[in-house]
Amino acid sequence: MNRQNHFQVAGASLAGDLDSIAIGDEIHGIAAEIYPICRSITGNGVRRTLQALKRHLPLVVHEIPSGTQVFDWVVPPEWNIREAYIANSAGERIVDFRHNNLHVLSYSVPVHARLSLEQLKKHIHTLPEQPALIPYRTSYYAEQWGFCMAHEQLAKLPDGLYEVHIDSSLEEGSLTYGEYLHRGALREEVLLSAHICHPSLANDNCSGVALLAALARRIVRMRTRYSYRFLFAPGTIGAITWLARSEHAVRRIHHGLVLSCLGDAGGPTYKRSRRGDAAIDRTMAYLLKGVGGAKVIDFTPLGYDERQFCSPGFNLPMGSFQRSQHGSFPEYHTSADDLDFIRPEHLADSYRVIAAALQILEQDCKPRNLMPKCEPQLGRRGLYAMIGGKDSAAKTKALLWVLNMADGTHCMLDIAERSDLPFALIAEAARLLEAHGLVKRC
Amino acid sequence: MNRQNHFQVAGASLAGDLDSIAIGDEIHGIAAEIYPICRSITGNGVRRTLQALKRHLPLVVHEIPSGTQVFDWVVPPEWNIREAYIANSAGERIVDFRHNNLHVLSYSVPVHARLSLEQLKKHIHTLPEQPALIPYRTSYYAEQWGFCMAHEQLAKLPDGLYEVHIDSSLEEGSLTYGEYLHRGALREEVLLSAHICHPSLANDNCSGVALLAALARRIVRMRTRYSYRFLFAPGTIGAITWLARSEHAVRRIHHGLVLSCLGDAGGPTYKRSRRGDAAIDRTMAYLLKGVGGAKVIDFTPLGYDERQFCSPGFNLPMGSFQRSQHGSFPEYHTSADDLDFIRPEHLADSYRVIAAALQILEQDCKPRNLMPKCEPQLGRRGLYAMIGGKDSAAKTKALLWVLNMADGTHCMLDIAERSDLPFALIAEAARLLEAHGLVKRC
Amino acid sequence: MNRQNHFQVAGASLAGDLDSIAIGDEIHGIAAEIYPICRSITGNGVRRTLQALKRHLPLVVHEIPSGTQVFDWVVPPEWNIREAYIANSAGERIVDFRHNNLHVLSYSVPVHARLSLEQLKKHIHTLPEQPALIPYRTSYYAEQWGFCMAHEQLAKLPDGLYEVHIDSSLEEGSLTYGEYLHRGALREEVLLSAHICHPSLANDNCSGVALLAALARRIVRMRTRYSYRFLFAPGTIGAITWLARSEHAVRRIHHGLVLSCLGDAGGPTYKRSRRGDAAIDRTMAYLLKGVGGAKVIDFTPLGYDERQFCSPGFNLPMGSFQRSQHGSFPEYHTSADDLDFIRPEHLADSYRVIAAALQILEQDCKPRNLMPKCEPQLGRRGLYAMIGGKDSAAKTKALLWVLNMADGTHCMLDIAERSDLPFALIAEAARLLEAHGLVKRC
Repeated sequence: MNRQNHFQVAGASLAGDLDSIAIGDEIHGIAAEIYPICRSITGNGVRRTLQALKRHLPLVVHEIPSGTQVFDWVVPPEWNIREAYIANSAGERIVDFRHNNLHVLSYSVPVHARLSLEQLKKHIHTLPEQPALIPYRTSYYAEQWGFCMAHEQLAKLPDGLYEVHIDSSLEEGSLTYGEYLHRGALREEVLLSAHICHPSLANDNCSGVALLAALARRIVRMRTRYSYRFLFAPGTIGAITWLARSEHAVRRIHHGLVLSCLGDAGGPTYKRSRRGDAAIDRTMAYLLKGVGGAKVIDFTPLGYDERQFCSPGFNLPMGSFQRSQHGSFPEYHTSADDLDFIRPEHLADSYRVIAAALQILEQDCKPRNLMPKCEPQLGRRGLYAMIGGKDSAAKTKALLWVLNMADGTHCMLDIAERSDLPFALIAEAARLLEAHGLVKRC
Repeated sequence: MNRQNHFQVAGASLAGDLDSIAIGDEIHGIAAEIYPICRSITGNGVRRTLQALKRHLPLVVHEIPSGTQVFDWVVPPEWNIREAYIANSAGERIVDFRHNNLHVLSYSVPVHARLSLEQLKKHIHTLPEQPALIPYRTSYYAEQWGFCMAHEQLAKLPDGLYEVHIDSSLEEGSLTYGEYLHRGALREEVLLSAHICHPSLANDNCSGVALLAALARRIVRMRTRYSYRFLFAPGTIGAITWLARSEHAVRRIHHGLVLSCLGDAGGPTYKRSRRGDAAIDRTMAYLLKGVGGAKVIDFTPLGYDERQFCSPGFNLPMGSFQRSQHGSFPEYHTSADDLDFIRPEHLADSYRVIAAALQILEQDCKPRNLMPKCEPQLGRRGLYAMIGGKDSAAKTKALLWVLNMADGTHCMLDIAERSDLPFALIAEAARLLEAHGLVKRC
Repeated sequence: MNRQNHFQVAGASLAGDLDSIAIGDEIHGIAAEIYPICRSITGNGVRRTLQALKRHLPLVVHEIPSGTQVFDWVVPPEWNIREAYIANSAGERIVDFRHNNLHVLSYSVPVHARLSLEQLKKHIHTLPEQPALIPYRTSYYAEQWGFCMAHEQLAKLPDGLYEVHIDSSLEEGSLTYGEYLHRGALREEVLLSAHICHPSLANDNCSGVALLAALARRIVRMRTRYSYRFLFAPGTIGAITWLARSEHAVRRIHHGLVLSCLGDAGGPTYKRSRRGDAAIDRTMAYLLKGVGGAKVIDFTPLGYDERQFCSPGFNLPMGSFQRSQHGSFPEYHTSADDLDFIRPEHLADSYRVIAAALQILEQDCKPRNLMPKCEPQLGRRGLYAMIGGKDSAAKTKALLWVLNMADGTHCMLDIAERSDLPFALIAEAARLLEAHGLVKRC
């Protein structure tokens, strides 16, 4: 099993989807499967979601008991909910969890009571500036209960007594996450992670979870150079729990991406790792250069699980990839982040960027010219373009650039950037030169 | 005595003046006290000035005998002057040292003679392009005598015999400078220096001397982290003499500023140290960023005593702070550089910048996150903003930025710049995190 | 023999020509001498050219037998040509090598045949978009024969039988190159190289060859600090052959230039060495800064013999200097690249840049201030401008800049750039300070 095989298998499989939007439909389909499930940072919603994903990839599901110490944190009690509603004095359910799981403040403690409108309002969350939308709210670490609803509905509620009912439980249980490790030729890993704790919000983060599943489904069948670890875990506490239990694996992570919000029409946006100059940072910047709407931004300790992966004690070479940045679009954390908000073409485009990045990481290396004194005679080997033409000129240029820079200190991405030639052409040139014994790739 | 105390005492005392212009009036008052004195690089003028400053701070006055070797230089003879005038043939004093001490070429040898107008003119300095102003001229190292006067007055002088009289002495004596060392918790020093050799020129440098005195007067009463050395010495030869006698102290200088021309309406201008990236350079650039009119310029080996402090054998981390750069304003080295030319509001503004820089230097350090793996749980400690709002969001951001960058390689100014949050907020966050055992500041 | 002498002799001799265009006429004259000769990568044309150059400098001519292995290459058979023509059925020579040696494909094998127009055309090279010009074509490593002619002439040829005759030989022989080593005070060398394999093309590269000869003729008579090696060799195979036979010399090359296309009206263009920050790169960028039309471009592994000199196994600090870049002007590799296309004024300007660069390299060093603590007293030594004036102010500035930066880490070019003063003034200041025992230059 040699390098070339890895490259070709990897290249072919991921690249096969690059020109179609079928992949976008596939990702949207997986997102639609898991969208209705009510997830939180623990509980059966996460379990059902991972169960659904198991149809696509051989996930290993981990259960970590409540109360487990994970660094400075403790795994919280498990939350489950069966039913929740507000009924008016006529007994009509005016807000019902069955219609939209955003209606309940996540981690609400159980309640059954009759309240005046005034009392009720203290437990209601709305968005006065987006009156038709239901907000998404959580209260993981402070025991309380609450409902979320459209502000325009709240405004019309008449005075009177309201029945509130939340049939939830907050008990010893466990935190659940799913993981799949694809073994490549190297033990060095690429970590790809998506948070799985949000309820019915399509972009944030059914899109990230579904794209990751679609990607894993392909990589399962491929021979790769790197090993690939796919992590589906609740945000913050899930990432912390995984890190606390996986310090052995952490040392092997050479590249990584935190994925979320991959289906809207904005961006794409790449946020650099804390290091700022990791290979993944350079690769993503290379791929997004000149792409309309694309932004490459510096690391900040705000955001999703890059906060944990890039904490100073780990400082992993992991960036974050989104379309619109979370928090920057009006649908964010509202009932408007639904399945219509994410589009197959945007999901496909996100997939293309990620797949192209992985292809570069798979192939990149610091080649070494085995005949570094003067140019080797390419003509004698049939490598020198005999007849002109743009294509063959570019190929000859790529050969000369690789030969010239292949001193073991420049990676192929360096050569692509320096020569202003496509990475694929540089990679092909390096392969060709290796085949002729002129260059050693790694 | 802990860090927090230093910071608070230092912060409070210097910051107390930051919003008022009372400090400007105070500095102007000190400048007005010393303005009339005829100073040169040696002599009683310097002594009387230091005497006046002693009312404000516990200065130690040093006398270094003429003839003392200081590096490549020799302390010159001491110059004193009692009287000087030019009288016309009617015996009327048309130029009199008593009216303006700029009238005499500094370091003039004594003379008493009667000369024709033509002979007299060889000893007269004027400014033909600023005909109403008296220039300031010196001849420290070439024995000669001379007068300075308004060009328009010279132009009107009738032919005839003129009596010139300079009652000066140039004799063995000493060079005088004043020094005050405020001891802080650390032996590491901040050196603040102002040249004290110019006669009645208000901006250059009664302003610098007076501001330094007002600053010292406050620091005397404070507990500080750094030790502070205040130096009032004649330009060039004074700085050279101090350096030659203080090599032990030089090794302890961690930051410094050369101060002059701090009262005019121009600038402010910060000139970097020869190093270019010293903490004082970064601090001043941070403070002046976006300030209208402010300029930050690179080191040049021209100017005032930064020439000596930043000579390659010392290469001290000392910049120079002025409003208009010396030599760049028309009043420079003329009788127009008088007490009206410097304004309390500009002096106060200069003070504010310097005080703010010292506050940053006092507090800056490279903090270390004591729980660097993942984020610590801020919520449990009451550090996580529970309710939104811009202020609390900025505080949370500051906490997260400090935690993330506190790996012992980034100073708090780095964190402030990287996060685009105010230094004070970052410093407060670091203090709070230290109080909760999450960060060690130094 | 001290530094100062070197500098003065070198300075005077090269500088003597800098203000005249006589040097341009001289270079044009040498170019005109060698222009008619039919050169290729081997053969008598190269020998006759070197013979002509021997009148100007004491060249050593080397002959390397065909078949010699030079790195990955083999010295090819020697090609010579005596006669070549195409005659029409009337026996009239419609294309004749005697009129223009571009008419024959370089390295054509011998042929004598009668062909139809259709058959003939397979062996004819023209430029349809420049129909009046004869192209320059070669086929060094694939045995074939061919003619080059104006497209408009070809278009008018009537059908019929044509006689083609090429009386050439391709036989065991040798590759010829010329070399001259001027010994300076140091064994460290400056390598100046021009390719000598092109037939009657004036800019590419009679201009480079002639300029190099004119430069060498002067350096022959000079005392220099560096040793200078002048190399006149066929492109690619000549440079490779020289490198293969001269690895001892290669280690001594501290600076170098590949010279070609130095007589047209474009540019000038400096292409950096592969290192990008070699002294020659900085020097050329310094000289071309602000020069109208001048371009400084990054290294690419395309071009002339910098491809070999800057291959990764050598990575020599050699840039390439041209006016228009080869390949970028319409006359390139056509019969329009004739003696009218190169102009004395452009040749003179090219010479001036190269001579100025050598003057800087000769003088540059990292001076060391022998009295680095504080400024030395310049006045006492008569070095301080006593009376003002722009010129003397610039001189004083230069002295202060050299003293301040002369810590052994900054070269004089650094000081010139940092101070924005002319290199010559900085060099003069360093010389003066050395004469006064204040600075050690190397």
